[in-house]
Amino acid sequence: MTKLFAHPTPRVGLTGSPLDRADHLRRRPEDMARLQADPSARWLIMDELKPLMSEDEHPHIIWSPATDIPDDAPMVFLGLNPAGEPRFAASTSAAALIAAHGGQLLDTRAAAQLLPHGQAAILAQSRSLLDWHARHGHCAVCGTATQPVKAGYARRCPGCHAEHFPRTDPVVIMLALKGEYALVGRQSGFPPGMYSALAGFIEPGESLEEAVARELHEEAGIITTDVQYLASQPWPFPSSLMIACFAQAQGYKITLDLDELEEARWVTKAEVQAALDGTGDWLAPPPLAIAHTLFTAWLAS
Amino acid sequence: MTKLFAHPTPRVGLTGSPLDRADHLRRRPEDMARLQADPSARWLIMDELKPLMSEDEHPHIIWSPATDIPDDAPMVFLGLNPAGEPRFAASTSAAALIAAHGGQLLDTRAAAQLLPHGQAAILAQSRSLLDWHARHGHCAVCGTATQPVKAGYARRCPGCHAEHFPRTDPVVIMLALKGEYALVGRQSGFPPGMYSALAGFIEPGESLEEAVARELHEEAGIITTDVQYLASQPWPFPSSLMIACFAQAQGYKITLDLDELEEARWVTKAEVQAALDGTGDWLAPPPLAIAHTLFTAWLAS
Repeated sequence: MTKLFAHPTPRVGLTGSPLDRADHLRRRPEDMARLQADPSARWLIMDELKPLMSEDEHPHIIWSPATDIPDDAPMVFLGLNPAGEPRFAASTSAAALIAAHGGQLLDTRAAAQLLPHGQAAILAQSRSLLDWHARHGHCAVCGTATQPVKAGYARRCPGCHAEHFPRTDPVVIMLALKGEYALVGRQSGFPPGMYSALAGFIEPGESLEEAVARELHEEAGIITTDVQYLASQPWPFPSSLMIACFAQAQGYKITLDLDELEEARWVTKAEVQAALDGTGDWLAPPPLAIAHTLFTAWLAS
Repeated sequence: MTKLFAHPTPRVGLTGSPLDRADHLRRRPEDMARLQADPSARWLIMDELKPLMSEDEHPHIIWSPATDIPDDAPMVFLGLNPAGEPRFAASTSAAALIAAHGGQLLDTRAAAQLLPHGQAAILAQSRSLLDWHARHGHCAVCGTATQPVKAGYARRCPGCHAEHFPRTDPVVIMLALKGEYALVGRQSGFPPGMYSALAGFIEPGESLEEAVARELHEEAGIITTDVQYLASQPWPFPSSLMIACFAQAQGYKITLDLDELEEARWVTKAEVQAALDGTGDWLAPPPLAIAHTLFTAWLAS
């Protein structure tokens, strides 16, 4: 298979999939029928959006043959693996398979943390697409029930003929910097003791740099003087594209929006290092999350 | 009013809005009622998504008072202007107003090219939001007709209680570079003679760097060795966030996907300069488009 990147992609969580999405094979139903009938075709099963994984010490994705997939299971084409073998994901119950052959259903986030880099990206692709189908069965224009087309990459309305595509919601996540300090905050829903970079959805009609400045001002009263892009990752809970930036802050004064954050504070590199090491008085997000990448990139700067 | 950015934002087309979106005022209907009743409140009228503009030599947005807006017109809160005055956009017919007071309806793209930097961003915000309401009147989960809430930044389903948010579809647009050359291409729908940077939607489960590499490979057979972010802009036709990048290409060989592009070719800086000057044998996109920013940034590099 052709590698699209001649060099490895940056090591950000949930990226680096080994699959070639093979977009040109999605267009014709006869290509899909051929790929599904290929004896090397395999399916990742997601049961209530939880992937079917092995019970090993180092769990891996269980790739099931066509005979394990009900004909009416919602399904998407993931792509071709490096050997050219078709890979799909399907939403269906795994109970009977687990009873017969073993295996376990894991929360996608937990599973992604256990998988090698690249394999976790397959879970991100599968979860976002299957969740989109599960929650977008009707036409937003006219309300009619829609049908999946293009190998699961669109839905078409038989009523008004509108075509609908999977959502990808861009989110900015940014570490505001000032002098020797970075700004971290916590939402009330975070695990106890965890702090992270501030974040928010990009709105219609703004650039990502403007979204960074708006969110820092809305959530913490911070004025931004400069924005610098670092890296991006998919975050399939349910369909975000996380866009990580550094922002230079004009001052230190924090004015919290308590609807968004329960606390925010300026921390030093030593405090961030201790949080990453698990020896500090607060916890940082795990390596899977791009906030972790922001922290490690700041420490290396 | 507080400026969110202490310095001017980068001069990319359709950015730099002077409005403060004042997110905290969207949450309570009583705040919205107060703002709509404020004597300084004004509305941008969009008729079939075309903004109502003056007929001057340098057309500007006509800001209409509440008395010009029917009670049942779909409406969104844009924010507060630098004087703290509320600004809204509404979808309604402008025919009676034009007959009585003059004015004209312009295509949004044409209008944006005539407005000063910053004013065009108001059109981007208005068009994306009003178009989203026009095409998302039903719940994607259950098909029931939905109602706008949160000052136009969400719709709620009275049937299943799902909440829906405006779409922002991230798109990568990239100039592949190799030695002294950049890769430009044309889609069959482009104006005659126009070439631009290649582009495509980011898919679920991939980073923007991966989308750049995938699109260059799909459309032109190019292998990417590195991706560098440049800038971003909203593109409200209907709801894109354009993310502009440079990509280093491994080789020059082009393999076209004729479903996506009708031609692609490698060009020099001199050829790009001539295209921007209007003296070459092909045309570049106008300054409003971020492809123009990619070209000028490459020339300056």
